[in-house]
This record gives sequence, structure tokens and C-alpha cells, in this order.
Amino acid sequence: MSLPRSLRIAILTVPGVMLLGSLSGVVAGSGETNPWFATLVKPALYPPGFVFGIVWTLLYALMGIAIARVLACPPERDRQRAALLFAAQLVLNLLWSTLFFKLHLLGPSFALILVILAAALATTLAFARLDRIAPWLLVPYLAWLCFAAGLAFRIWRLNPGAAPPY
Amino acid sequence: MSLPRSLRIAILTVPGVMLLGSLSGVVAGSGETNPWFATLVKPALYPPGFVFGIVWTLLYALMGIAIARVLACPPERDRQRAALLFAAQLVLNLLWSTLFFKLHLLGPSFALILVILAAALATTLAFARLDRIAPWLLVPYLAWLCFAAGLAFRIWRLNPGAAPPY
Repeated sequence: MSLPRSLRIAILTVPGVMLLGSLSGVVAGSGETNPWFATLVKPALYPPGFVFGIVWTLLYALMGIAIARVLACPPERDRQRAALLFAAQLVLNLLWSTLFFKLHLLGPSFALILVILAAALATTLAFARLDRIAPWLLVPYLAWLCFAAGLAFRIWRLNPGAAPPY
Repeated sequence: MSLPRSLRIAILTVPGVMLLGSLSGVVAGSGETNPWFATLVKPALYPPGFVFGIVWTLLYALMGIAIARVLACPPERDRQRAALLFAAQLVLNLLWSTLFFKLHLLGPSFALILVILAAALATTLAFARLDRIAPWLLVPYLAWLCFAAGLAFRIWRLNPGAAPPY
């Protein structure tokens, strides 16, 4: 009795990606308990804090399943390229919390979301060359990044005094 | 002397898509000259009217090149699926101007952009299975649809009196 290859890989990648995502937030002191963040003016569409916890948990889990499906493909150049793009977008994603919650760089935080979005889109297209399901697992992530870019832009513009000069 | 197959197809598809896009706007009476549209409150990020003409001309041209590259691929089920998705998203796109500029349905216009975005994303992923360049030609379109969704949402919320009951 043996599990499918993608499922065996997912046993490692799903908790792995979720742990990295969770750690990036904790290290940066993200969320409602951050006293600097509490002082910021939020846009009208800003969701309650617990929504971010639920959404990111789900998105990191989906990312873990998607990369597992890709890593289960036959080793070829397309797979290597897809895995590198995935790693690059994940590293950028993990840096975001520090840029925003620790360094308080509102403008660059908005710009970084656009870069993450571009990298996540490139990853999604690379996944589409290898598997029919994996790219779709990243679509909720792409949608959330679009929404997050809108929020980050509004927060930047609503809080001109909160951003250090750059 | 013969042109590459994708280029010969593009001679038909680029003007074809651009013509359809242009007609959809003319038929609906889109743009600054629409007296109903002139009365609407616009969001702060709303670009000058000429920007829409330039952007859509470019996006329809890129769509025409992308579908030409896909149609130049060997005939197989993936190609048929990609072409059908492309046609579906284009029909939805062409309907938008009528829904907004003629029927004045602000809420449904916003919802339709989300549906077009989903269909355009599915088209992009289907193109990615067939060609390395074609999906990237649709990325500016995806980006603009995200921006257009934001504008349509703001216009809907800023003009509660302008939308008929539904």
C-alpha cells in the first residue's frame, strides 16, 4: 500500500509552507496586536483581523499542495524552472510582513505586493505547463494579492504621516 | 517566401479583435461623450478618458496576437479548449460596455468584470499549456481587468442613485 507521489510530497510541503508563513508573521509582529498598526487609518473595505489569519492559512496550504503536485512531475527543465519561481515568490511573500509591520514602509510594501503578484503569476503559468490542477490552486492566492494590493495602496495614501521618508 | 503560420493568422485576428472591441464601445455609446456617464461621480484614481482608448486598443491587439499564436499550434483538444475559452471571455468583454453605458447597471457591471477576469485567467492558463509567449500577452489584460474592477466597484458605491433597482 503506497500513497500517490504528490501526496507523499505534500505531507512535507503543506506544513512546511504553512510554518514559514506563520513564522514570517510572528517574527514581524504582524496583526491587530501591533501597536503601530493599531494607530493607522484603515480603508472602508478593511476586513476584521481574524480574516487575515484564516485566509493566509488556507492560501499557504493550497500553495503547499500545488508545489507538491509540481514536484511529483517527471524531472525536467520546466519543473526546475517552476520550482525556482515558486521559491522566489514565497521568499518575497515572507519578506512582506517585516517590510510593513516592522519597518513601517507603506509605499514599498504596496510596491512589493505588485512584485509578489507578478512572481506568483509567473509561477502559476509555469505550473500550468506541468499540471492541470496546480495552477488553479494558486488562483485564490492571485485574487487575494489583488485585493491586498488595493488595501496596501489605500493604507499608504490614508496615512501620509505614518511612512518614514524614503 | 512565406510568413510564419502564426503571423499569417494574426493578419486576420489582430484587426478582427480590435474591430470587435471598437464596435462594442461605439454601439454602447461608451466614453466621455455619454451624457449619463458624465453625471457620475468618479473615483480619485479614475484616468482621463483618452487613456481607456489607448489601453483597450493595445489590449485588443495583444489578444489578437495571442490567439493567433495558439491557433498556429497543432490541432489537438487543448487547442480547441483554449480557443473556446478565448471566445467566451471575448464575448463577455464585448457585452460589458452595453451593460454599463447603455443599461446603466453599475452593480452587475462590477460583477461582470470579475467574471471576465475569471474567464481571461482560465484562457491564460489554457494558453500556457500550448505556448510560452501567448499567456504573457494576456497579462497586461489581466492587470487592467483588476484595475477596472476596482474602478467599477468604486463607481458603483459612489453613485447609489445612478443604479436602477435590481
